[in-house]
Amino acid sequence: MSAQTFLIIGGVAGGMSAASRIRVLNPEAKIHVFQKNSYVSYIACGMPYLIGGKVNSINTLVMYDAAFFKEKRKIDVSLHHEVQKIIPSEKIITVKNMETGTMTDYPYDRLLISTGARPVVPPLKGINLPGVFKLRELEDGIALNNFVNNNKPQSAVIIGAGAIGMEMAEAFSERNMSVTMVEKMPAILGTMDDEINEVIENELKNKNVMLIKSKAVVEFIGENSVRAVLLEDGTQLKADIVLVSIGIRPNIELARDAGIEIGQTGAIKVNERMETSIPDIYAAGDCAEAYHLLLKRNVYMPLGTTANKQGRVAGDNMAGGNVRFHGIVGTSVFKVFDLEVGRTGLSEKDAKKEGLTYVSDVIEHFSKAHYFEGAAKIRIKLLAEKASGKIIGAQLVGKNGVAKRLDVVASAIGAGMTAAEMNNLDLSYAPPFAPVYDPILIAANEILKKL
Amino acid sequence: MSAQTFLIIGGVAGGMSAASRIRVLNPEAKIHVFQKNSYVSYIACGMPYLIGGKVNSINTLVMYDAAFFKEKRKIDVSLHHEVQKIIPSEKIITVKNMETGTMTDYPYDRLLISTGARPVVPPLKGINLPGVFKLRELEDGIALNNFVNNNKPQSAVIIGAGAIGMEMAEAFSERNMSVTMVEKMPAILGTMDDEINEVIENELKNKNVMLIKSKAVVEFIGENSVRAVLLEDGTQLKADIVLVSIGIRPNIELARDAGIEIGQTGAIKVNERMETSIPDIYAAGDCAEAYHLLLKRNVYMPLGTTANKQGRVAGDNMAGGNVRFHGIVGTSVFKVFDLEVGRTGLSEKDAKKEGLTYVSDVIEHFSKAHYFEGAAKIRIKLLAEKASGKIIGAQLVGKNGVAKRLDVVASAIGAGMTAAEMNNLDLSYAPPFAPVYDPILIAANEILKKL
Repeated sequence: MSAQTFLIIGGVAGGMSAASRIRVLNPEAKIHVFQKNSYVSYIACGMPYLIGGKVNSINTLVMYDAAFFKEKRKIDVSLHHEVQKIIPSEKIITVKNMETGTMTDYPYDRLLISTGARPVVPPLKGINLPGVFKLRELEDGIALNNFVNNNKPQSAVIIGAGAIGMEMAEAFSERNMSVTMVEKMPAILGTMDDEINEVIENELKNKNVMLIKSKAVVEFIGENSVRAVLLEDGTQLKADIVLVSIGIRPNIELARDAGIEIGQTGAIKVNERMETSIPDIYAAGDCAEAYHLLLKRNVYMPLGTTANKQGRVAGDNMAGGNVRFHGIVGTSVFKVFDLEVGRTGLSEKDAKKEGLTYVSDVIEHFSKAHYFEGAAKIRIKLLAEKASGKIIGAQLVGKNGVAKRLDVVASAIGAGMTAAEMNNLDLSYAPPFAPVYDPILIAANEILKKL
Repeated sequence: MSAQTFLIIGGVAGGMSAASRIRVLNPEAKIHVFQKNSYVSYIACGMPYLIGGKVNSINTLVMYDAAFFKEKRKIDVSLHHEVQKIIPSEKIITVKNMETGTMTDYPYDRLLISTGARPVVPPLKGINLPGVFKLRELEDGIALNNFVNNNKPQSAVIIGAGAIGMEMAEAFSERNMSVTMVEKMPAILGTMDDEINEVIENELKNKNVMLIKSKAVVEFIGENSVRAVLLEDGTQLKADIVLVSIGIRPNIELARDAGIEIGQTGAIKVNERMETSIPDIYAAGDCAEAYHLLLKRNVYMPLGTTANKQGRVAGDNMAGGNVRFHGIVGTSVFKVFDLEVGRTGLSEKDAKKEGLTYVSDVIEHFSKAHYFEGAAKIRIKLLAEKASGKIIGAQLVGKNGVAKRLDVVASAIGAGMTAAEMNNLDLSYAPPFAPVYDPILIAANEILKKL
């Protein structure tokens, strides 16, 4: 029997996790990764910190290059190769070498689709002007960073007030630009409830970021380079640089054209083994759905952690294992200026949308002993299901002690804990790290009163 | 029916939590707290930070004073009153006013014993010399702080290398003293395993703290004030100030003399309602045992968090409620110089002592994205029960991101999670806060391989 052939479309988190896992489990396998641009295995989430100046080299964000994979893991990586077509009936893919234009068919025994996602780019006048950027691929980050270095923009406009917009508002500020954020919706951060957004808006104000809500952008104005953003009400915002960050869409066209089932979310439908609807074809990462443990259905919530885990599970199963991706509870976190912001489980918006009967409460409490240096209040919004008392969601915001405290709730949700059970947790206390009653326990105790 | 009378012996964490809780539940109750020294409701855990200079006033460590309790909560507090005797058959206690010497009997309907603990003081020559301190009551902290302010000691010797000794090594160093720690046992921190202690010893060395292990102190030398510590091998250590911190013992004499059952641990035996063996007498805090959820028996593990929680539960039940103290899993944390150190569940030493069949593993992984400012390796020792795969303990040490990450494991243990379940947790990721795979997940994944 000849060695099995594993083909992987896309070489970032999901793809390279799978490739590496297959190699561990199958030393003989032929593994070939096709990546349409110039980098594999890069840390997309680090780009705002490259631009903000906290990461000083692009190399820092590239974990391993193609040569590393070839030499150390015997994994072939073809850069600048775009997969054009998957033909499941023949178990081949057609790949275009972007440098030569040559088309080649590659047969596979098992195939992974980890094509990621792409930013939503509104078809507005001026969208292709120099100085108007998106931030998704490493190339985007490099281009944006070079533009900042070379053009020294003084004013930045960010379209979209989501997590990446927030991280970039900080990054642009650190590069001494005046920053304006424009959000089409009445609220920033659609994933968060008002009580949390209020704290974030206040922080933006303190850091001199101008926030414009409920206003659509209609045009990017400029000749050789962008110089202003035109809003629907006629306002012109000066802009030496623009970042468009209004969301992402999964790259599902290859899969769809091959007859692979697309889920209701618009992303590739997968089961817990990361199998698609067609045998021997798997999907993982930002192009795929993820099972949500609370909602008990697949959702589209693309994140680096999930992509890595799904890639690993896919690789395991492709190599003959039987591993399942347990699912997510919707944990995410980001930093914006001096604030740490995180959520896990469902927001109140989510709970309403799902028609759940819940109680919610908002508390504020110190992150450490109130007299200890750096002590600051954390605001916690906690949600519990009315009937069962189970914790179904939390949002935290504060200057410190947010992210891993959030993980305590993520663990509680993962374990199906009730508010009473969370209230009983034996959490750590010492003045530098927490008050005697940790804010998580205060929140649990308060919500218990409402149950 | 006249109002019920609740007497409380001891006015720190357990006692004042109970008193305040009784008041909430019973607006008519007569509540009287007897405290033998000058302060109630103070934060003992903050004293090292007072001495180290991070807390600038003793007032910061006193949450509320007797006048506050009287005015705001109608709770009588008698300072400098020492309870001499409990007479359960008559439901009275005999109290000595330490200022006048007067003895008075007070009748109770329900009584709480929250007499705390006292430091072990070895009966060595010179132990009463000026400059030789213990650190337990707020008065101890004040005296020690005044001595440092007035005498400007240059060399400090700390007897006992436990958590408080560690915190004080940092505090003395911050006051520009050269510090020597003397530990009679071969290992520092009896609560921790060697792989963690190794990191701490290294930190002490880096901070120029001299550590002497396996050596007993035999005498404190000095005339008007201590000037040296004599070890069993004849070594004399220069000492302008000495802190003796070799452990604490529960204050159980009042309870024992009243016929209340003392547990095998040497502390007052309590049930989950915080009732002692005699009706209408409750106990809480550092004088009492606490139920350990993993060991499924009472242990003596006195901590501020537990004292507060037990006091609250006692108060609830004394006022007619029916609340139980769920128990502890043995979570504790402290800071020593640039290190955060914590444990939850059982150490390997504990597991061996209990005769458990377990697997353990030690990993090191970055606390945040490796390229992010402040990224440092956390060392995690994780233990799981062999047969069930359940997580039974963790110890963490590192420069940041330890305490609340520890709480994720405390929650996992509280929920009875297996290593596989912990490995599936959806923990937060963003470069400022964690690597893509959180160290907790790395540890879970590694220990899974051994199961």
